[in-house]
Amino acid sequence: MEFYYYSLAIGILSLLFSLVAAYTVLKKPEGTEKMKEISNAIRAGSKAYLLRQLKTIAIFAVVLVIVLAFLPHGLQLDVAFITGAVASYLTAYLGMNVAVRSNVRTTKSAEKGVSHAFSTAILGGSVTGFAAVGFGLVGLSLLLAFLTLSKVELLIGFGFGASLISLFARVGGGIYTKAADVGADLVGKTELNLPEDDPRNPAVIADNVGDNVGDCAGMGADVFESYAVTLVASLLIAAGLSLSSAQFAYPLLIASAGIIASMLSMAFLRIGRGGSPTSALYKGISASIIIAAILDIAITYLGHYPAGYFISVLGGLLLAIVIFGITDYYTGTGRKSVVKVSTAAKGGAGTDVIMGLAVGLRSVWLPVIAVVVGILVGYFSAGLYGIGIAAVGMLSLTATILTIDSFGPITDNAGGIAEMSHLPEHVRKVTDELDGVGNTTKATTKGFAIGGAALSATALFVAFANAVGLTSIDALNPIVTVGIFIGVLMPFIFSSFLMEAVGHAANLMVEEVRRQVRTIKGILTGKAKPDYAKAVDIATVNALKSLVIPELIAIVTPIAIGLLLGKQALGGLLVGMIPASFLLALFMANSGATMDNAKKYVEAGNFGGKGSDTHKAAVVGDTVGDPLKDTAGPALNSMIKVVSTISILLAPIFVYALI
Amino acid sequence: MEFYYYSLAIGILSLLFSLVAAYTVLKKPEGTEKMKEISNAIRAGSKAYLLRQLKTIAIFAVVLVIVLAFLPHGLQLDVAFITGAVASYLTAYLGMNVAVRSNVRTTKSAEKGVSHAFSTAILGGSVTGFAAVGFGLVGLSLLLAFLTLSKVELLIGFGFGASLISLFARVGGGIYTKAADVGADLVGKTELNLPEDDPRNPAVIADNVGDNVGDCAGMGADVFESYAVTLVASLLIAAGLSLSSAQFAYPLLIASAGIIASMLSMAFLRIGRGGSPTSALYKGISASIIIAAILDIAITYLGHYPAGYFISVLGGLLLAIVIFGITDYYTGTGRKSVVKVSTAAKGGAGTDVIMGLAVGLRSVWLPVIAVVVGILVGYFSAGLYGIGIAAVGMLSLTATILTIDSFGPITDNAGGIAEMSHLPEHVRKVTDELDGVGNTTKATTKGFAIGGAALSATALFVAFANAVGLTSIDALNPIVTVGIFIGVLMPFIFSSFLMEAVGHAANLMVEEVRRQVRTIKGILTGKAKPDYAKAVDIATVNALKSLVIPELIAIVTPIAIGLLLGKQALGGLLVGMIPASFLLALFMANSGATMDNAKKYVEAGNFGGKGSDTHKAAVVGDTVGDPLKDTAGPALNSMIKVVSTISILLAPIFVYALI
Repeated sequence: MEFYYYSLAIGILSLLFSLVAAYTVLKKPEGTEKMKEISNAIRAGSKAYLLRQLKTIAIFAVVLVIVLAFLPHGLQLDVAFITGAVASYLTAYLGMNVAVRSNVRTTKSAEKGVSHAFSTAILGGSVTGFAAVGFGLVGLSLLLAFLTLSKVELLIGFGFGASLISLFARVGGGIYTKAADVGADLVGKTELNLPEDDPRNPAVIADNVGDNVGDCAGMGADVFESYAVTLVASLLIAAGLSLSSAQFAYPLLIASAGIIASMLSMAFLRIGRGGSPTSALYKGISASIIIAAILDIAITYLGHYPAGYFISVLGGLLLAIVIFGITDYYTGTGRKSVVKVSTAAKGGAGTDVIMGLAVGLRSVWLPVIAVVVGILVGYFSAGLYGIGIAAVGMLSLTATILTIDSFGPITDNAGGIAEMSHLPEHVRKVTDELDGVGNTTKATTKGFAIGGAALSATALFVAFANAVGLTSIDALNPIVTVGIFIGVLMPFIFSSFLMEAVGHAANLMVEEVRRQVRTIKGILTGKAKPDYAKAVDIATVNALKSLVIPELIAIVTPIAIGLLLGKQALGGLLVGMIPASFLLALFMANSGATMDNAKKYVEAGNFGGKGSDTHKAAVVGDTVGDPLKDTAGPALNSMIKVVSTISILLAPIFVYALI
Repeated sequence: MEFYYYSLAIGILSLLFSLVAAYTVLKKPEGTEKMKEISNAIRAGSKAYLLRQLKTIAIFAVVLVIVLAFLPHGLQLDVAFITGAVASYLTAYLGMNVAVRSNVRTTKSAEKGVSHAFSTAILGGSVTGFAAVGFGLVGLSLLLAFLTLSKVELLIGFGFGASLISLFARVGGGIYTKAADVGADLVGKTELNLPEDDPRNPAVIADNVGDNVGDCAGMGADVFESYAVTLVASLLIAAGLSLSSAQFAYPLLIASAGIIASMLSMAFLRIGRGGSPTSALYKGISASIIIAAILDIAITYLGHYPAGYFISVLGGLLLAIVIFGITDYYTGTGRKSVVKVSTAAKGGAGTDVIMGLAVGLRSVWLPVIAVVVGILVGYFSAGLYGIGIAAVGMLSLTATILTIDSFGPITDNAGGIAEMSHLPEHVRKVTDELDGVGNTTKATTKGFAIGGAALSATALFVAFANAVGLTSIDALNPIVTVGIFIGVLMPFIFSSFLMEAVGHAANLMVEEVRRQVRTIKGILTGKAKPDYAKAVDIATVNALKSLVIPELIAIVTPIAIGLLLGKQALGGLLVGMIPASFLLALFMANSGATMDNAKKYVEAGNFGGKGSDTHKAAVVGDTVGDPLKDTAGPALNSMIKVVSTISILLAPIFVYALI
């Protein structure tokens, strides 16, 4: 089965690409001592957090390794699990480590203009992008090389390992970043009238650390997981349908084609003469989709695959760009919905939030239709396998999307460093422009991640039914109904803990900032330095403390339902959990992004601009939106996949169910 | 089949009870000219709104009557539909008309102390309570008397008629009440520092009208609908299972027993020596549950019914009190969650809302478990019929619950009239106390309505499968998956329109109030009278304008899915729609109630009390919560049932589906 070697080779190529990108960006100059000092503080905080998080993860992982060992083929499952977890953690760790070094280099290159700074940030982002797909493909290919086809289901261990890390990274990073951000904004902007990233704000370093551990490490692990899990799901479906080994190879070939397409499209991810950052990003994404489609046609034709396979892949590729566009339509700067929310801010914070929630609720319909069409296209062109293939098609763009996404926190940090180092106006103008673009890409790639999670979870659901040997899950069976109710319930409870954690930690942060402003004399005139480390510590401790319960909910609920009510009920749980989590995640992400951009719209001078009552109202809306869009919403992605993979993983024990 | 005569007789008895209660309360004195003048203004606004709403309803109704006429047995279906619609409208209209007369009489009796005022408000509320169940039972019994058992499925027309009116009353009333309330509060409390119900606030009459058209007419139609639809669903299940006519009679007997129990328990709904309003309410509910259970045991034993029937009924009865308690636990004044939200308000409006949303998300889990247990108890004691019977058991308490619920808007208005008429301190103290109790009962009865809707929708779902002839709805079929995604989507889109409507209308109201304060000289010193009518007009026009799209979404979506993707997909739609709407409704209702009571907690003097920054933050939270708890949340109840009933109603045409 030589195709494993192809995908292994492409995976290694991708890792090499990532290394070269890392080397190139690290060679760039770092700027002044002041800049280095700030960058170092952010770096130290980020690393410290990730290492402390690792300890919590280790406890969970050890328990799980022991539990898995008791399942059939337990040791092989353990190897797969550990491989998945390590690959995911390496992606997150490596990506973040390069990001915290790319930020200051982006600031420095901003001196030479927007196109230089853009390239530096993109290069830094591509390290995460290509590391993720590289680790994913290499890990899976190696496992496949050692497994016989009859044991393909053990790959779910790899998927579960990736999911577990992703859940930690998303939940912990999400709580951290928003506790710091909300805390910094509530006192800084509303009470003290300080601008964003002002060095006099004691929470400013914590805020920048949060960008890295949340948007960078969290997002990296999340998308890595979607990528890994989607490939695993499609391979499981193929194995379940007893397809030939050539058909079985198709998802791996499509994934490899996606990596090549992403590499080639890096050439388009630059600002040409008279170009803008946004147009460069769109060019890059379009190029990767077109190149991928061409390669995919070639693979389908040369490999004598049914044309329906290619149609499924194309459906997935188009879904990626459609969801991108939809998210931009509802949440992009200056869009109708954003203006509507800013207009509502004239009536006060209350109407701003009401309208922001309304827009978020509304924004979900087009993505749902798009995913539904994707599912139907996949199914009608290539049966159940088509759903898996469509998901692989969409996720084959991961390297490009993740590159663009990691661009966000790098430019965000670059702006912060420029502000804190008091760099000249023209440099800050460049970093501000890129920061604005980064905000939009963060929202749109979040749409990609959420849509990808929904599609891959649907594929996992098919794989689940195979794994537990169900040929139907009848919603008229009251046991299934009960499972569905509990499945719909899961995202509500899960996100309630995250929202509460942010609310609580942000309040502590507010009190700490107020305390420092009150007790450290000269802090507001810039004569005394705030105690940044204390704020970093509050975010770290609270994020880690609040991790445990949501993790347990995601892991224990499916096990409990499976053992108490049996596999029919567990199937029902997935039936309810997947769409409910998908929609809640979209609602939360889009509400938050819209309220964020509504605030920016006011800050751009509309309805009274900065400092006006309308601005104050819009800042409250942004604060409410923060944990929705950066904590609860994205974490639901990871929850969907942890619950799905653990349901498949533990399929063998659900025969012992009570009912 | 003499049992129709029993239930008809009990229904007529209930209507007589309602009439006597109306007569008794209307005989009570109305108070001063000033009080009458205010009460008349509220009454005129409420009546005008309900009449204008009727015109919009009439257009929809005429179209539907024509469409239904083309179905098999179209004319009989039309008769059932019109009966249901008229019964529902009469309930809403009559209840509201008595409520707007009971308010001023409650204020007047407050002069004689809290126990007198309490009795007056309860008496006024009982008019709606007993009218609802009376009309329900009389309407259904009459229809049954004219239908042969083979045509029982035509009863769904009655349920759909009730649902349609309920949807209008809930959506229109909900938008009206919150546009007025939010508009009045945002300027009145936040900008002008006026107290609640201050006559200098131009939106104050509109606010009081809103209490009646929303909480009173809307809630009346909603609970009437749940009652009617639950009975219809259980009868349809019985017909589908080809049960004997004695078994078929069981739900009607249980409903009749519930009415008797409610009448007897009115004797306990009074404040004795040293008693409090809250304890009186709990005594009343407990009495009605105990009496109903005793009567239900007797019916089961004497009628030789299986013991499992009674266990199902008991499950439903207990579910009512459990959901009552749970809602109180999460949202009641002074409860842990409420204090948590008020504490978060110290950090500002942002953290207040974050915590309020977190509490709302959390609060759904116990009600879901309770409903799930109710479904399982029903199913395991009496099969699918048991689910219907459990729902009937719960809803058999409707008269008592609706009496207590209508108590809320009456005491709310009574407080408003006392404030606006500048009555002496001791009178206002009484009305304030009752108003506070009314707020809690409004929240807890909302829990009852939502739980009842979920249970009755589950019963309707079973009836739907019978009606379209499905023996299984397989979630592994991608067409069903697509239906489920769209079903979960429905409550999001539906509520987005309601939230937006409130946000928009509230903004117009804010502008109008600001305009009047600016242009009418002497308005703030009380020397000039505000133009109340203009504010009433804004709320009326906007509520009616915003009605149409949500109505169309609820009616057209199931028809479109049924015709395009067939009955399997439509089954999927119900599978997704019911739990997702149930949970979103609970989340919204409880978030709003918690933020409301958190504000009250601050107003009671905690964390700085009225006028402090914490208070301002809590007011913003209350504003955000208002449309969640009083517009979007409750309207989802009605949406669930409209979608379910129309799916059953149009079952005959779904054989023409495209797929």
